Amino acid sequence: MYSTMVNLRNTLVIMKEKDLVNSMLLETIKSPHALKSLTFEQLEKLAAEIREVLVSTVSQTGGHLAPNLGVVELTLALHTVFNTPRDKMVWDVGHQAYVHKLLTGRYERFSTLRQAGGISGFPKIVESPHDAFGTGHSSTSISAALGIALARDLNGESHHVIAIIGDGSLTGGQAYEAMNHAGHLGVNMTVILNDNEMSISKNVGAISEYLAKMRTAPTYSKVKNDVEHLLRRFGDQVAKTAERVKGSLKYLLVPGVLFEELGFTYFGPIDGHNLPLLTEVLQSTKSVTGPVLIHVVTCKGKGYVPAECHADKFHGIAPFCIETGKVNSSGNGNPSYTQIFGETLTALAETDPDIVAITAAMPDGTGLKSFANRFPERFFDVGIAEPHAVTLAAGLAARGKKPVVAVYSTFAQRAYDQILHDICLQNLPVVLVLDRAGIVGEDGPTHHGMFDFSYLRHIPHLTIMAPKDENELRHMLYTAFQLAGPVVIRYPRGQAVGVPIDMHWQALTTAETEDVADGCQVAILSIGTMWQSCRMAREILASRGITAGLVNARYISPLDGEMLRRVVQKTPLLVTVEDNVLAGGFGSAVLEQLNHAGLHYGKVLRLGWPNEFIPQGSRGELLSAYGLGAEGIADSVQDFVTRWAIAP
Amino acid sequence: MYSTMVNLRNTLVIMKEKDLVNSMLLETIKSPHALKSLTFEQLEKLAAEIREVLVSTVSQTGGHLAPNLGVVELTLALHTVFNTPRDKMVWDVGHQAYVHKLLTGRYERFSTLRQAGGISGFPKIVESPHDAFGTGHSSTSISAALGIALARDLNGESHHVIAIIGDGSLTGGQAYEAMNHAGHLGVNMTVILNDNEMSISKNVGAISEYLAKMRTAPTYSKVKNDVEHLLRRFGDQVAKTAERVKGSLKYLLVPGVLFEELGFTYFGPIDGHNLPLLTEVLQSTKSVTGPVLIHVVTCKGKGYVPAECHADKFHGIAPFCIETGKVNSSGNGNPSYTQIFGETLTALAETDPDIVAITAAMPDGTGLKSFANRFPERFFDVGIAEPHAVTLAAGLAARGKKPVVAVYSTFAQRAYDQILHDICLQNLPVVLVLDRAGIVGEDGPTHHGMFDFSYLRHIPHLTIMAPKDENELRHMLYTAFQLAGPVVIRYPRGQAVGVPIDMHWQALTTAETEDVADGCQVAILSIGTMWQSCRMAREILASRGITAGLVNARYISPLDGEMLRRVVQKTPLLVTVEDNVLAGGFGSAVLEQLNHAGLHYGKVLRLGWPNEFIPQGSRGELLSAYGLGAEGIADSVQDFVTRWAIAP
Repeated sequence: MYSTMVNLRNTLVIMKEKDLVNSMLLETIKSPHALKSLTFEQLEKLAAEIREVLVSTVSQTGGHLAPNLGVVELTLALHTVFNTPRDKMVWDVGHQAYVHKLLTGRYERFSTLRQAGGISGFPKIVESPHDAFGTGHSSTSISAALGIALARDLNGESHHVIAIIGDGSLTGGQAYEAMNHAGHLGVNMTVILNDNEMSISKNVGAISEYLAKMRTAPTYSKVKNDVEHLLRRFGDQVAKTAERVKGSLKYLLVPGVLFEELGFTYFGPIDGHNLPLLTEVLQSTKSVTGPVLIHVVTCKGKGYVPAECHADKFHGIAPFCIETGKVNSSGNGNPSYTQIFGETLTALAETDPDIVAITAAMPDGTGLKSFANRFPERFFDVGIAEPHAVTLAAGLAARGKKPVVAVYSTFAQRAYDQILHDICLQNLPVVLVLDRAGIVGEDGPTHHGMFDFSYLRHIPHLTIMAPKDENELRHMLYTAFQLAGPVVIRYPRGQAVGVPIDMHWQALTTAETEDVADGCQVAILSIGTMWQSCRMAREILASRGITAGLVNARYISPLDGEMLRRVVQKTPLLVTVEDNVLAGGFGSAVLEQLNHAGLHYGKVLRLGWPNEFIPQGSRGELLSAYGLGAEGIADSVQDFVTRWAIAP
Repeated sequence: MYSTMVNLRNTLVIMKEKDLVNSMLLETIKSPHALKSLTFEQLEKLAAEIREVLVSTVSQTGGHLAPNLGVVELTLALHTVFNTPRDKMVWDVGHQAYVHKLLTGRYERFSTLRQAGGISGFPKIVESPHDAFGTGHSSTSISAALGIALARDLNGESHHVIAIIGDGSLTGGQAYEAMNHAGHLGVNMTVILNDNEMSISKNVGAISEYLAKMRTAPTYSKVKNDVEHLLRRFGDQVAKTAERVKGSLKYLLVPGVLFEELGFTYFGPIDGHNLPLLTEVLQSTKSVTGPVLIHVVTCKGKGYVPAECHADKFHGIAPFCIETGKVNSSGNGNPSYTQIFGETLTALAETDPDIVAITAAMPDGTGLKSFANRFPERFFDVGIAEPHAVTLAAGLAARGKKPVVAVYSTFAQRAYDQILHDICLQNLPVVLVLDRAGIVGEDGPTHHGMFDFSYLRHIPHLTIMAPKDENELRHMLYTAFQLAGPVVIRYPRGQAVGVPIDMHWQALTTAETEDVADGCQVAILSIGTMWQSCRMAREILASRGITAGLVNARYISPLDGEMLRRVVQKTPLLVTVEDNVLAGGFGSAVLEQLNHAGLHYGKVLRLGWPNEFIPQGSRGELLSAYGLGAEGIADSVQDFVTRWAIAP
């Protein structure tokens, strides 16, 4: 295996030196049908080319590199054996579908990956007929594939349905709900378990240990050899009837008793980088009756040394240098909000032994790594299991602990009921920290965290805060632990502002107002990090002769009613600015509060994301395109002021 | 077993004839500590008394009868062996905790069960120190118990933690997420699997079949006898060290390999009505290191013939006649919205073969039973697995089917992300039918469906409708199938109005307005079945000299902007009325729409549930108490009109 890596590294270095594109086999693959006539030698060459394209493209665009490097042979085998778009493939999470995209007519557009107007980093029904179902969040593939298989049977069709799911995604309960149902129904479908021992980070949980046991059992090599031998010996004949296949290979089933008990026929574990073996097994299991699970062992990052060595770092990565594997420096050089959160939590935990932290498979992404290293016994990685993460926190809080659940805004959507029913109904002091809130950028609509204000602010007992910068984030985290009930703090992806950090902690209870004085023509009410653009917008407005006051709302729930009353008495024109969908968001809360308080003379312009799914693109591009940059905000405010005809 | 049932029936009849209360052992049980000195004979007598109290109380109050009759011996054994409140018990769903309540100081208040101001039908931390964690929704107990166990270990405490979960709840993915985590950590905790082969209806899924296999294996009786023998022989000595217990009983582990692979030590199956066996097994497994799963087989409805024969009907039941088991007739005699939905869907499906229906373990509760009987191959019961139900529907819709997911509003909360990410982002034509929307009554805050407008209306592509009566419900269901995207229809629990049913189907696209004419002083905007009270309120207002127009909004999303413009031009005073929390609800949507359309002169009074959790009580009581009955609405409208000083 090591030589392969070195070879590829050399290949990549060579590729940088002379343009190999013209000799590429990949260019000739206009549809997966073209794979069927290739020899294994040609497929191996294709695999190497695909890895080159993956590394070179993602080094430019950023994206999910390691997951795709791991499934090159698996994807080639799937498209050699099955026939999309007739057969339906559902890629769980979908960040490992780049190879699938390259083989299904999207090679020429591949350089637009994750860019505004380009192809998505995830499968999308509207992008290609080869994408049977759109994904982005984890553990949905078996449910969707089962639905597709049931529709097939009702429609009297006969195609194959394949779900490809990682061992990380298997920690999500929905995958079990779906297997429990599929196994019960006995529907014909194939689940490929892509076992790379990783979630984004190292995978956790009893199931993960169970899979490891299978991988490392003494029979592993023997089983592999036996399969190869068996398949060589019987070939197509093996596949003739389902029962016979099952009978012939039955000793392979022994390791997968857990899946067998769920009603699946288990095959594996299979080496996921052995193309002849993969194609043979896929071919021979096609005719098995009922749901099949094929356990494929792959190496995340396969073929590119830095990604093999640091599969977590290369899971999703920004543009990087191919030779060194180092991420290109970009941005303002400030720490991210994620880092600030992690450091602050660790500092607070030094003096408060009751603070514990929970992540759903994202110790790095959420910034909890340093906390985990400092307080391993107070840190819990539950796997990709947000509902459990939240109720676990409720249990801890019920017994006097102060749990922090750190999760991306878009994934917290999966625990809406647990937040409401297990935490807030019982008024338990859990701190939910929502990272990647608002628009996330290149990952697009499956990952934009633009709904959290709307799906959270109606939940009783729940305090919701959003900091204007990293210094305020620190104070808010401190404040959260002073409160006796549940708290949400949300902040966006990316680098912080670079403001000075206070040495003391401060409990923040009210909004912060700047320059909302008599004679001010309009007040801009900002929530969260939109503050920065609002400040700039105010300067632009000043240069146009419009005096605007500014409020950093800090809390969206409870909203600071006193602040609102004071502000609207100074100027009846209010502009709310938020990095959230407008429906049910911060501006909506301001309308409700004005209505509730009888402040009917307040006129409100609400700026935020329109009530639609927002496409991919960089955060900066999207904010500008939707008028949420400083210029756009200034223009909107100016129009608003002009419309209400208040003289400067 | 049959004789027991007959005996109990006789006992109950006798009890009706003479007052046995004074001779009751149960009266003397002020805390579970009192159980420890009782003989098994006394405990058996107590069990019979508890069943009498359960049947007689629930026959008056309504409630979850069958689940509680099934766990009488189990609960007695748990409280004999463990020591609450020091030890912590978490009751999954919690509707089976009545026996626990009777044994933990709530016997005297038991007649107030589920009544306004009375004790809850579910465990509540604030109700008793013996309730370690509040429940109501399914499959949360292992997560919460694990959190409690981890807090115990961090705090250096040493009590026991026990989760009691039904086989139905085990179909919920969160239970697996929690087991996967607990098994990995190896934390000391006990999970009691209360296996009665039922969810609310007959349990489904591969796991259910797996449990059945264990129950019916030839070794079942043998294993039981062996355990009894073993325990008799070794007694306390068995329990001395964890390893030895595990070793001694290891042949008991064979049937539970699935749980073993998840890291649990499995014991069972055990007869859940054999008190000596239950107490012995609980006692001896107390000292096992790491998580333990004890598989207990119980009979739902045990001891009361009608409930044993119809455990689904007696799962949750309205007040009934003890002798016949028949539900007392009440209300207006009209069919329920649930029934109307079920009949309408079946009728529509007769002519449209693409319509399929999905339930999450509630074929009866959601009214799908008739559809299931008529179209068994187009009906899917997925178990208590709302996330899977929704993504399954998305898969079906992606292949041309027209799936209807029928679910209670409060349980749809568990699939918020799947609704957003799998259905709406892909704009797939799935119809979500939310029953028990708004206030549900006696089940209280864990079950009130009062948040759905707020957690759904910001989701792009999603159409949300609420019918004013059963005739409109029929048209809305028809309309939903005409639309090309996702649709939600929500309606409340209970009997419909009794309006005539149209023979034709009609696609409803706009709001319905009544009497919003020039000179009308105020317009009442009603959504859903609040229509009935609003009509009455209008009559009351007329008798007070106030002319009010009336609008049935029908759609909350998209809101009928044209209607709003027309109405506000007739009268600037609008009153919105909804059976939903005010924050982010229908009134909030009206404020947003007025704001968006620049109709700043519209003044709005929003009536609905305040931003707090609403307690239990009958629907009528709660609506009145919160000013949402006809009188309350009329009073609020009158105040509003008066405040704005518009002369009659």
